[in-house]
Amino acid sequence: MNRTVSGFATSDEAEQAFYNAFSMCDQNAMSAVWADDKVVCIHPGSNAIYGYESVMRSWTHILNNAQLPRILFNTVKKTVNESLAVHLVEEHIASGQGAVVVILATNIYQQLENGWLMIEHHGSVTQSHAETHTVQ
Amino acid sequence: MNRTVSGFATSDEAEQAFYNAFSMCDQNAMSAVWADDKVVCIHPGSNAIYGYESVMRSWTHILNNAQLPRILFNTVKKTVNESLAVHLVEEHIASGQGAVVVILATNIYQQLENGWLMIEHHGSVTQSHAETHTVQ
Repeated sequence: MNRTVSGFATSDEAEQAFYNAFSMCDQNAMSAVWADDKVVCIHPGSNAIYGYESVMRSWTHILNNAQLPRILFNTVKKTVNESLAVHLVEEHIASGQGAVVVILATNIYQQLENGWLMIEHHGSVTQSHAETHTVQ
Repeated sequence: MNRTVSGFATSDEAEQAFYNAFSMCDQNAMSAVWADDKVVCIHPGSNAIYGYESVMRSWTHILNNAQLPRILFNTVKKTVNESLAVHLVEEHIASGQGAVVVILATNIYQQLENGWLMIEHHGSVTQSHAETHTVQ
Protein backbone atom coordinates (compact mmCIF):
# COMPACT_ATOMS: atom_id res chain seq x y z
CA MET A 1 0.00 0.00 0.00
CA ASN A 2 1.45 3.36 -1.02
CA ARG A 3 -0.27 5.44 1.57
CA THR A 4 1.66 8.20 3.27
CA VAL A 5 0.49 8.01 6.84
CA SER A 6 1.04 10.86 9.22
CA GLY A 7 -0.23 9.86 12.61
CA PHE A 8 -1.50 12.13 15.34
CA ALA A 9 0.36 13.56 18.32
CA THR A 10 -2.02 11.93 20.82
CA SER A 11 -4.82 9.39 20.87
CA ASP A 12 -7.18 12.27 21.68
CA GLU A 13 -6.25 13.99 18.43
CA ALA A 14 -6.75 10.77 16.51
CA GLU A 15 -10.15 10.38 18.15
CA GLN A 16 -11.19 13.93 17.29
CA ALA A 17 -10.12 13.30 13.69
CA PHE A 18 -12.15 10.10 13.58
CA TYR A 19 -15.36 11.81 14.69
CA ASN A 20 -14.70 14.84 12.47
CA ALA A 21 -14.35 12.51 9.49
CA PHE A 22 -17.54 10.68 10.46
CA SER A 23 -19.49 13.93 10.99
CA MET A 24 -18.32 15.43 7.71
CA CYS A 25 -18.71 12.17 5.74
CA ASP A 26 -15.11 12.73 4.66
CA GLN A 27 -13.68 9.49 3.34
CA ASN A 28 -10.17 10.89 2.87
CA ALA A 29 -10.07 12.10 6.45
CA MET A 30 -11.40 8.75 7.64
CA SER A 31 -8.69 6.96 5.65
CA ALA A 32 -6.02 9.00 7.42
CA VAL A 33 -7.20 8.02 10.91
CA TRP A 34 -6.59 4.29 10.57
CA ALA A 35 -3.35 2.34 10.75
CA ASP A 36 -2.46 0.17 7.78
CA ASP A 37 -1.93 -3.14 9.43
CA LYS A 38 -4.14 -5.52 11.33
CA VAL A 39 -7.00 -3.12 11.89
CA VAL A 40 -10.49 -4.31 12.80
CA CYS A 41 -13.83 -2.55 12.81
CA ILE A 42 -17.09 -3.77 14.32
CA HIS A 43 -20.05 -1.64 13.35
CA PRO A 44 -23.01 -1.92 15.76
CA GLY A 45 -24.75 -5.28 15.44
CA SER A 46 -22.33 -6.45 12.76
CA ASN A 47 -19.57 -8.94 12.34
CA ALA A 48 -15.93 -7.95 12.55
CA ILE A 49 -14.30 -6.49 9.45
CA TYR A 50 -10.58 -7.14 9.22
CA GLY A 51 -7.89 -5.30 7.27
CA TYR A 52 -7.46 -1.74 6.07
CA GLU A 53 -9.03 -2.13 2.63
CA SER A 54 -12.14 -3.90 3.91
CA VAL A 55 -12.58 -1.47 6.79
CA MET A 56 -12.30 1.47 4.38
CA ARG A 57 -14.88 -0.07 2.06
CA SER A 58 -17.29 -0.33 5.00
CA TRP A 59 -16.78 3.34 5.84
CA THR A 60 -17.18 4.36 2.20
CA HIS A 61 -20.55 2.63 2.22
CA ILE A 62 -21.58 4.30 5.50
CA LEU A 63 -20.32 7.78 4.61
CA ASN A 64 -21.83 7.70 1.12
CA ASN A 65 -25.22 6.89 2.60
CA ALA A 66 -25.16 9.16 5.65
CA GLN A 67 -26.62 12.64 5.51
CA LEU A 68 -24.02 14.59 7.47
CA PRO A 69 -24.96 13.03 10.81
CA ARG A 70 -24.75 15.25 13.84
CA ILE A 71 -22.49 13.42 16.28
CA LEU A 72 -21.81 14.22 19.89
CA PHE A 73 -19.09 12.07 21.38
CA ASN A 74 -18.06 11.83 24.99
CA THR A 75 -14.92 9.90 25.91
CA VAL A 76 -16.03 8.46 29.23
CA LYS A 77 -12.97 6.35 30.08
CA LYS A 78 -9.39 6.30 28.89
CA THR A 79 -6.51 3.96 29.66
CA VAL A 80 -3.32 5.05 27.96
CA ASN A 81 0.30 4.02 28.16
CA GLU A 82 3.21 4.89 25.90
CA SER A 83 2.01 2.97 22.86
CA LEU A 84 -1.58 1.84 23.39
CA ALA A 85 -4.72 3.80 24.21
CA VAL A 86 -8.14 2.39 25.05
CA HIS A 87 -10.98 4.91 24.87
CA LEU A 88 -14.57 4.14 25.78
CA VAL A 89 -16.82 6.59 23.98
CA GLU A 90 -20.52 7.36 24.16
CA GLU A 91 -21.71 8.47 20.74
CA HIS A 92 -25.01 10.27 20.18
CA ILE A 93 -25.70 10.17 16.48
CA ALA A 94 -28.58 12.11 14.94
CA SER A 95 -29.48 11.41 11.35
CA GLY A 96 -31.14 13.77 8.89
CA GLN A 97 -34.51 12.48 10.03
CA GLY A 98 -33.83 13.54 13.61
CA ALA A 99 -33.71 10.11 15.19
CA VAL A 100 -30.90 9.77 17.73
CA VAL A 101 -29.09 6.54 18.41
CA VAL A 102 -26.71 6.04 21.30
CA ILE A 103 -23.70 3.88 20.55
CA LEU A 104 -20.98 2.73 22.91
CA ALA A 105 -17.63 2.41 21.20
CA THR A 106 -14.36 1.01 22.38
CA ASN A 107 -11.72 2.75 20.29
CA ILE A 108 -8.16 1.47 20.33
CA TYR A 109 -5.24 3.60 19.19
CA GLN A 110 -1.62 2.62 18.78
CA GLN A 111 1.48 4.79 18.76
CA LEU A 112 3.23 3.84 15.55
CA GLU A 113 6.25 5.18 13.73
CA ASN A 114 4.56 8.41 12.66
CA GLY A 115 2.18 8.92 15.55
CA TRP A 116 -1.10 7.64 16.95
CA LEU A 117 -3.56 5.87 14.65
CA MET A 118 -6.76 3.88 15.16
CA ILE A 119 -6.41 0.11 15.10
CA GLU A 120 -9.85 -0.95 16.37
CA HIS A 121 -13.34 0.50 16.55
CA HIS A 122 -15.93 -1.66 18.30
CA GLY A 123 -19.39 -0.13 18.41
CA SER A 124 -22.57 -1.52 19.95
CA VAL A 125 -26.09 -0.27 20.41
CA THR A 126 -27.34 0.44 23.91
CA GLN A 127 -30.64 0.49 25.69
CA SER A 128 -30.33 4.22 26.32
CA HIS A 129 -33.37 6.35 25.78
CA ALA A 130 -31.92 8.44 23.03
CA GLU A 131 -34.80 10.88 22.96
CA THR A 132 -33.65 12.29 26.27
CA HIS A 133 -30.33 13.42 24.78
CA THR A 134 -29.79 16.66 22.93
CA VAL A 135 -27.62 16.58 19.88
CA GLN A 136 -26.64 19.99 18.55
CA MET B 1 -12.16 -2.94 49.49
CA ASN B 2 -10.38 -5.72 51.36
CA ARG B 3 -9.88 -8.01 48.43
CA THR B 4 -6.59 -9.81 48.05
CA VAL B 5 -5.96 -9.71 44.35
CA SER B 6 -3.47 -12.03 42.76
CA GLY B 7 -3.25 -11.22 39.09
CA PHE B 8 -2.27 -13.53 36.29
CA ALA B 9 1.11 -14.04 34.65
CA THR B 10 -0.20 -13.08 31.20
CA SER B 11 -3.30 -11.59 29.64
CA ASP B 12 -3.92 -14.99 28.05
CA GLU B 13 -4.11 -16.61 31.49
CA ALA B 14 -6.48 -13.89 32.68
CA GLU B 15 -8.64 -14.49 29.63
CA GLN B 16 -8.73 -18.24 30.18
CA ALA B 17 -9.74 -17.61 33.80
CA PHE B 18 -12.52 -15.25 32.68
CA TYR B 19 -14.06 -17.82 30.35
CA ASN B 20 -13.58 -20.65 32.86
CA ALA B 21 -15.45 -18.59 35.45
CA PHE B 22 -18.21 -17.82 32.96
CA SER B 23 -18.50 -21.47 31.85
CA MET B 24 -18.59 -22.78 35.41
CA CYS B 25 -20.90 -20.00 36.68
CA ASP B 26 -18.26 -19.46 39.37
CA GLN B 27 -18.76 -16.04 40.92
CA ASN B 28 -15.64 -16.26 43.10
CA ALA B 29 -13.49 -17.07 40.10
CA MET B 30 -15.12 -14.23 38.14
CA SER B 31 -14.41 -11.84 41.01
CA ALA B 32 -10.72 -12.75 40.88
CA VAL B 33 -10.37 -11.91 37.18
CA TRP B 34 -11.25 -8.23 37.45
CA ALA B 35 -9.14 -5.32 38.64
CA ASP B 36 -10.51 -3.23 41.48
CA ASP B 37 -10.40 0.20 40.00
CA LYS B 38 -12.07 1.87 37.10
CA VAL B 39 -13.38 -1.26 35.47
CA VAL B 40 -16.21 -1.21 32.93
CA CYS B 41 -18.38 -3.96 31.51
CA ILE B 42 -20.74 -3.75 28.56
CA HIS B 43 -22.93 -6.79 28.20
CA PRO B 44 -24.33 -7.30 24.68
CA GLY B 45 -27.01 -4.72 23.86
CA SER B 46 -26.66 -3.05 27.25
CA ASN B 47 -25.40 0.17 28.70
CA ALA B 48 -21.98 0.42 30.31
CA ILE B 49 -21.61 -0.68 33.93
CA TYR B 50 -18.87 1.13 35.82
CA GLY B 51 -16.98 0.11 38.95
CA TYR B 52 -16.03 -3.21 40.49
CA GLU B 53 -19.07 -3.65 42.77
CA SER B 54 -21.59 -2.88 40.04
CA VAL B 55 -19.81 -5.07 37.50
CA MET B 56 -19.75 -7.95 40.00
CA ARG B 57 -23.48 -7.53 40.69
CA SER B 58 -24.15 -7.82 36.97
CA TRP B 59 -22.13 -11.04 36.77
CA THR B 60 -23.84 -12.44 39.86
CA HIS B 61 -27.15 -11.91 38.13
CA ILE B 62 -25.93 -13.54 34.91
CA LEU B 63 -24.18 -16.48 36.55
CA ASN B 64 -27.09 -17.18 38.91
CA ASN B 65 -29.43 -17.40 35.95
CA ALA B 66 -27.21 -19.27 33.51
CA GLN B 67 -27.34 -23.04 33.22
CA LEU B 68 -23.65 -23.85 32.87
CA PRO B 69 -23.38 -22.41 29.37
CA ARG B 70 -21.07 -24.18 27.00
CA ILE B 71 -18.67 -21.54 25.74
CA LEU B 72 -16.16 -21.76 22.95
CA PHE B 73 -13.93 -18.73 22.73
CA ASN B 74 -11.47 -17.86 20.03
CA THR B 75 -9.09 -14.95 20.52
CA VAL B 76 -8.92 -13.66 16.96
CA LYS B 77 -6.70 -10.61 17.46
CA LYS B 78 -4.31 -9.50 20.18
CA THR B 79 -2.35 -6.31 20.65
CA VAL B 80 -0.17 -6.43 23.74
CA ASN B 81 2.57 -4.26 25.17
CA GLU B 82 4.18 -4.32 28.58
CA SER B 83 1.13 -3.14 30.53
CA LEU B 84 -1.95 -3.22 28.29
CA ALA B 85 -3.50 -6.02 26.27
CA VAL B 86 -6.37 -5.74 23.81
CA HIS B 87 -7.96 -9.05 22.86
CA LEU B 88 -10.74 -9.40 20.32
CA VAL B 89 -12.63 -12.59 21.06
CA GLU B 90 -15.33 -14.51 19.23
CA GLU B 91 -17.54 -16.23 21.78
CA HIS B 92 -19.93 -19.05 20.88
CA ILE B 93 -22.28 -19.49 23.79
CA ALA B 94 -24.73 -22.37 23.97
CA SER B 95 -27.38 -22.29 26.65
CA GLY B 96 -29.13 -25.25 28.21
CA GLN B 97 -31.79 -25.05 25.53
CA GLY B 98 -29.20 -25.54 22.81
CA ALA B 99 -29.47 -22.13 21.19
CA VAL B 100 -26.10 -20.70 20.24
CA VAL B 101 -25.34 -17.01 20.19
CA VAL B 102 -22.19 -15.53 18.74
CA ILE B 103 -20.78 -12.57 20.61
CA LEU B 104 -17.81 -10.41 19.73
CA ALA B 105 -15.96 -9.17 22.77
CA THR B 106 -13.17 -6.69 23.14
CA ASN B 107 -11.42 -7.64 26.37
CA ILE B 108 -8.90 -5.26 27.88
CA TYR B 109 -6.33 -6.42 30.43
CA GLN B 110 -3.87 -4.35 32.40
CA GLN B 111 -0.63 -5.37 34.06
CA LEU B 112 -1.01 -4.17 37.62
CA GLU B 113 1.05 -4.60 40.76
CA ASN B 114 0.21 -8.27 41.16
CA GLY B 115 -0.20 -9.31 37.56
CA TRP B 116 -2.66 -9.06 34.69
CA LEU B 117 -6.34 -8.39 35.40
CA MET B 118 -9.37 -7.51 33.29
CA ILE B 119 -10.34 -3.85 33.19
CA GLU B 120 -12.92 -3.87 30.38
CA HIS B 121 -15.23 -6.35 28.71
CA HIS B 122 -17.25 -5.02 25.77
CA GLY B 123 -19.54 -7.58 24.20
CA SER B 124 -21.88 -7.19 21.24
CA VAL B 125 -24.15 -9.45 19.28
CA THR B 126 -23.32 -10.23 15.68
CA GLN B 127 -25.19 -11.20 12.57
CA SER B 128 -23.43 -14.55 12.48
CA HIS B 129 -25.48 -17.60 11.71
CA ALA B 130 -24.90 -19.34 14.98
CA GLU B 131 -26.49 -22.59 13.88
CA THR B 132 -23.52 -23.27 11.64
CA HIS B 133 -21.16 -23.44 14.60
CA THR B 134 -20.57 -26.48 16.72
CA VAL B 135 -20.21 -25.96 20.43
CA GLN B 136 -18.95 -28.97 22.33
